[in-house]
Amino acid sequence: MSGLDETAPAGLLEAFWQYETALMANDLEALDRLFAPGADTLRGDAGGILVGHDAISAFRRGRGGAPKREIVDVLVREIAPDAAMVIAVTAPATGGRGQQTQLWRLIDGAWAVEVAHVSLPAPAVNPTVWRIVGTPLVAGADVPELASQTIAVKDLFDVAGYATGGGVPAYLAEAAPATRTAPAVAALLASGADVTGIARTDEFAYSIAGKNPHYGTPPNGAVIGAIPGGSSSGPASAVALGQASIGLGTDTGGSLRVPASYQGLWGLRTTHGAVSVEGLLPLAPSFDTVGWLTREAWLMRAVATTSLDLGQQVLPPANRFAVSSALTAQASPGVRAAFDDAIARLGDAGVVDDLVDVDLGDIDALFETFRTVQGAEAWATHGAWIEKHPGALGADIAARFAWASTISSEAEARARVALAAARLEIERVLDGRTLLLPSASSVAPSTTADAAANEITRASTLRLTCVAGITGRPALSVPALTVDGAPVGLCVVGPRFGDLGTVITGAKLHGELVDR
Amino acid sequence: MSGLDETAPAGLLEAFWQYETALMANDLEALDRLFAPGADTLRGDAGGILVGHDAISAFRRGRGGAPKREIVDVLVREIAPDAAMVIAVTAPATGGRGQQTQLWRLIDGAWAVEVAHVSLPAPAVNPTVWRIVGTPLVAGADVPELASQTIAVKDLFDVAGYATGGGVPAYLAEAAPATRTAPAVAALLASGADVTGIARTDEFAYSIAGKNPHYGTPPNGAVIGAIPGGSSSGPASAVALGQASIGLGTDTGGSLRVPASYQGLWGLRTTHGAVSVEGLLPLAPSFDTVGWLTREAWLMRAVATTSLDLGQQVLPPANRFAVSSALTAQASPGVRAAFDDAIARLGDAGVVDDLVDVDLGDIDALFETFRTVQGAEAWATHGAWIEKHPGALGADIAARFAWASTISSEAEARARVALAAARLEIERVLDGRTLLLPSASSVAPSTTADAAANEITRASTLRLTCVAGITGRPALSVPALTVDGAPVGLCVVGPRFGDLGTVITGAKLHGELVDR
Repeated sequence: MSGLDETAPAGLLEAFWQYETALMANDLEALDRLFAPGADTLRGDAGGILVGHDAISAFRRGRGGAPKREIVDVLVREIAPDAAMVIAVTAPATGGRGQQTQLWRLIDGAWAVEVAHVSLPAPAVNPTVWRIVGTPLVAGADVPELASQTIAVKDLFDVAGYATGGGVPAYLAEAAPATRTAPAVAALLASGADVTGIARTDEFAYSIAGKNPHYGTPPNGAVIGAIPGGSSSGPASAVALGQASIGLGTDTGGSLRVPASYQGLWGLRTTHGAVSVEGLLPLAPSFDTVGWLTREAWLMRAVATTSLDLGQQVLPPANRFAVSSALTAQASPGVRAAFDDAIARLGDAGVVDDLVDVDLGDIDALFETFRTVQGAEAWATHGAWIEKHPGALGADIAARFAWASTISSEAEARARVALAAARLEIERVLDGRTLLLPSASSVAPSTTADAAANEITRASTLRLTCVAGITGRPALSVPALTVDGAPVGLCVVGPRFGDLGTVITGAKLHGELVDR
Repeated sequence: MSGLDETAPAGLLEAFWQYETALMANDLEALDRLFAPGADTLRGDAGGILVGHDAISAFRRGRGGAPKREIVDVLVREIAPDAAMVIAVTAPATGGRGQQTQLWRLIDGAWAVEVAHVSLPAPAVNPTVWRIVGTPLVAGADVPELASQTIAVKDLFDVAGYATGGGVPAYLAEAAPATRTAPAVAALLASGADVTGIARTDEFAYSIAGKNPHYGTPPNGAVIGAIPGGSSSGPASAVALGQASIGLGTDTGGSLRVPASYQGLWGLRTTHGAVSVEGLLPLAPSFDTVGWLTREAWLMRAVATTSLDLGQQVLPPANRFAVSSALTAQASPGVRAAFDDAIARLGDAGVVDDLVDVDLGDIDALFETFRTVQGAEAWATHGAWIEKHPGALGADIAARFAWASTISSEAEARARVALAAARLEIERVLDGRTLLLPSASSVAPSTTADAAANEITRASTLRLTCVAGITGRPALSVPALTVDGAPVGLCVVGPRFGDLGTVITGAKLHGELVDR
């Protein structure tokens, strides 16, 4: 490899080293000046490509400095008097080698970067996504069904020989290795899939954001700088990043559908009770369900087929649909527009022809009922442990549990009565129809969004997701919508035990909306 | 992100898609044609940067096709009528997103790539380097000494709760989880380092190449397309790639010094008996030693200080040195030249002033003695298991054990007598001096080198490395030499129990040769 190239245009290498000095000093103004102005400038790394000087500048302002490194080799390729490539081999302080490829342009007498591509050496494992990874961690049976598929198991399911951590380090530290593997894991192993590893979850799965204060925020595989969605955050990011093909997770209030929506994946919450929760760390047993995340519809169908024991209860795909304008109104204008457009296109194509707009009742009241029962059960599940371990939870989830601890028995009892009534009323209104709605109220929010904005997004999304929780229905997030290039799920809420039909229905809608 | 750019120069996107089609079809002639001719063309990926059309072509011919992918976005940045960047977002069939940045030039009327930078999504874990990885797998004590350091443990050491695999899948399959952690691992944990994971080894550590037929060949962190060196291949690559800071390995006939040499690391084989081999899967106990790989001298010194129990036997750094022309003659001309130049510079600097050229006897006979005792012990260790598991080993190591099985008791007894005599004679000749020699006979060979070439390299390197094996002396590979840009180690063979002094000596020589 050559060293410094003698043919570098005048001033170019000076600018290159100015940039390096500014990068190491996190001198944001100098970095902004050394990147070309305008909307065409671009910078790519493992997280994705940022387009436009301002997007790159905002990224720099958010990250708090680049990783420390040295430049160990520089190669220059002159293109024209005002254009050259500078390719640098970098040596991060943490070891290994990286590469930085830049197109520099001479603009108004000053050199500036117009295109940059940055590669860092891979870590042994991404600790925001995984707790432990093997090659494989547990080998599946030698059968063809799910052969060569790889599973990211949410850190709520028992895997024999390993402790279950629930996303809480203090809980993990006290947990003994499981002696049995949870049936939901065992079913996938028996079908030939390997367990790649145990993946992250929000603390005790009591969140839909995917921000774990102890282990960090897993990257969103679809939207640069966005939260992954939770609580099945690790399995979702693992699948989106291509580090596993099947994410095994849970969904109490949206914990599979939301990360699926945020990262452009298929995510199925199964019918409450259709997949065993044995060997699963519970959150709120009245709503806890098992389910999966995949990149492809066929694999979701294969996984559901092998894992669901539906017996005689298999229902056919849907041909009668419903929407709820009051529900859809919870979503952001962009999501509403994308959803309404999709419904119109499905109608025009004759794929969704029998469609009614239903009134599910007071959406705020439904959500209040759901979250009261959920909170009471969450506190019943984890309250004693939390009280014995002050400081074990991050501020957000600690506050949520603290609120849950204040729910009186009377309030819980009232909510349970309301829940039973709501379940009957929604099923009466839906009359066996499959409900279509957005999987989340917005695209994935930025990791730097403020707490107030996050709370609004969360409350709106939970109003959408709680209908499946209340009814115990299966709900499939289909990666069929986009808003400004970011994915949003189309949620298909089928009748109870109609899981397989719901997957088939989702694939059909997807085929019409995306593949056509 | 923009889609196809309307301002792309004529013919550019056609050439781009021709390239993509050729890549997916592994059409090597078309790919060669679509990369600019000459010595300036370059292509970088996570493995390093290839410079020159022919080097890139040879790489393509060796890899057997690129990973399957789709192009999901293309951005064009025109620079001049004959130059443009094409930045593509790729979607590998295995999931995740990659990026490909290319500088295209119009040369003699045809578009060709002059600079390429390719990024693929990281896997959950690199299975050629690691067997299992945690975050951490085992946490170290909360003490400052080695705090924040991370260990790659060669898959020969017991780690409580995990089976020991020895690089052989059939052996791993029958192994029960260890109930105790090997003292060599425990010493590092007690000093505050975390175990990141269990890393690959050649089958039963009976090789210096680092090619495991079951798990693949770990990448060489320093030389693109070269073997990593073994048998401590996984720990060495993990350290070179920045995936761990300490590689814990073993050295029977060169298994730490050779990967250190090939990958530009510090590698210490300790005095035979100075570090406990309890909880270690043996190969040839008369020669088996424990040791470490690091990127930095200070860390090697810290690790050696915490792990070695030298008691009153600590010896000072060396001031009397020896070389052996007959030993150095085993190395390739390039390595000899680099070594001789280093010795001359150290002499000129006055760092190595008391230096003699010693006659260690018949080098071929020394090697024959070493390999006979090693082979007999290797068969005694693993022969019974191997005979019960036909087909469990790859062809190369199976043949080596088959040869070992033919060593008669009489031949072994003769070799043991010769070994004892050689040990005395070498120590008599060295008279307490520190021996300097190349760590390996060559730079790291290519992964595609043929078997005959590999056997010659191996035989020459083992003639160099066996002196420390025979004498039980500590031997430190210092990353101080380079041949055509590839690293080679300067080996410092100190007196028995002079391990710490040897590390200090090595750092001093390195300071003179590299840092000055």
